[in-house]
Amino acid sequence: MKVVVDAMGGDFAPAEVVRGAVAAAEEYGTPVVLVGKGEVIEQQLKRFHVASLPIELVDAPEVIEMDEQPGVAFRKKKKSSINVGLSLLGEGKAQSFVSAGNSGAVMAGAIFILRNIEGVDRPAIATPLPTPEGKITLIDAGANVDCKPEHLAQFALMGEVYARKILGVEKPRVAILSNGEERMKGNELTKGASRLLEKLPITYVGNAEGRDLFAGKADVFVCDGFVGNLVLKSLEGLAVAVG
Amino acid sequence: MKVVVDAMGGDFAPAEVVRGAVAAAEEYGTPVVLVGKGEVIEQQLKRFHVASLPIELVDAPEVIEMDEQPGVAFRKKKKSSINVGLSLLGEGKAQSFVSAGNSGAVMAGAIFILRNIEGVDRPAIATPLPTPEGKITLIDAGANVDCKPEHLAQFALMGEVYARKILGVEKPRVAILSNGEERMKGNELTKGASRLLEKLPITYVGNAEGRDLFAGKADVFVCDGFVGNLVLKSLEGLAVAVG
Repeated sequence: MKVVVDAMGGDFAPAEVVRGAVAAAEEYGTPVVLVGKGEVIEQQLKRFHVASLPIELVDAPEVIEMDEQPGVAFRKKKKSSINVGLSLLGEGKAQSFVSAGNSGAVMAGAIFILRNIEGVDRPAIATPLPTPEGKITLIDAGANVDCKPEHLAQFALMGEVYARKILGVEKPRVAILSNGEERMKGNELTKGASRLLEKLPITYVGNAEGRDLFAGKADVFVCDGFVGNLVLKSLEGLAVAVG
Repeated sequence: MKVVVDAMGGDFAPAEVVRGAVAAAEEYGTPVVLVGKGEVIEQQLKRFHVASLPIELVDAPEVIEMDEQPGVAFRKKKKSSINVGLSLLGEGKAQSFVSAGNSGAVMAGAIFILRNIEGVDRPAIATPLPTPEGKITLIDAGANVDCKPEHLAQFALMGEVYARKILGVEKPRVAILSNGEERMKGNELTKGASRLLEKLPITYVGNAEGRDLFAGKADVFVCDGFVGNLVLKSLEGLAVAVG
């Protein structure tokens, strides 16, 4: 599997991204395609011994910044690393794309270039989280801030497949993140989603609270991207404050 | 200030609640009114030396359980500790009410018996949280799962007063919890609320992310009760898992 990496996205890019890509190529032998400003990446690559590694470089002179309006930026910057990187997938030249950049632009680009899976209206961010009880999957961790019940149902299906195929959980238990375990708890969105999840061919275990994330009560936790982002970043904040 | 305490609400009630009430009366000299099943509380009080303490007991033979439908339970159980306790406030016999019980029932009861402050449509739960940068106030931490922008604006005002008057923050900075600091980030609810907060006589500092809770970026963090509950309980879960 050839992996395209957006060298220009994320904190301390491109230096740290290039470093990670080189480490991955070295450790796993994964073919990596670094996409971004050619000269800058070349300069970064000089820090490492890459002659024998399966690393390619594809030039993309434009960069979509974190504060740009995703859809607009993606349409305007045809030569951005996100645009060029996703196009490599669209053309079948690689099998996956990694970016720590503007996630809205990645999402817009994925829809525009790769199209949705049939039956899935919106891409979602699935984030595996380590817990004392094993890895859980939080979905959506930030791609879709305003959702309808059917979107959460689609996230549930995708999260279940992710946990099964990627994390190797045999029969993933799927829960909806809510403000209480009781059936009647939840907001309009999660109550509507719950009625849909009950009908899906998955192991739906009902509502889960925030603290259940770490208690082994489910393998996949479904929420809208606004909630997922806030939960994830709050945990990150606490970890930084304590650690 | 006389404080009414719901002896029947919360984990390990009434034992732990009575213990806490006795400790408070001892340490601060606060007059406490314990409300709940008379005989049970009397039994509990025997564990302590309370003869000289400002502790009263008011009998309330019914208990609203955690899994009861709040509004229904409150209307049905006229002799519940929540009902009797809030009525003491309504009659001017005490100045505040503390309950770790069914928060929905407390909220319904507060609206029904005490009525709202003018201009405030819904009560909210303000939770002070310790951080390395001092105490912050999270509001709403769980009372209102589905909100409109004007509700968040009202929470902002109440949270600002709470931080100023109770926590002693001179000029509290108020932020809206969102999925990004940038102005364009947020869901329909927070974007609408942001437009309202800009016009309020408070120090509104814009959006704050989950990690900003611990970074000293604001003193009051405003959100709907679904999000507030999830953030709070996720943090609790991580703390338990790590600690």
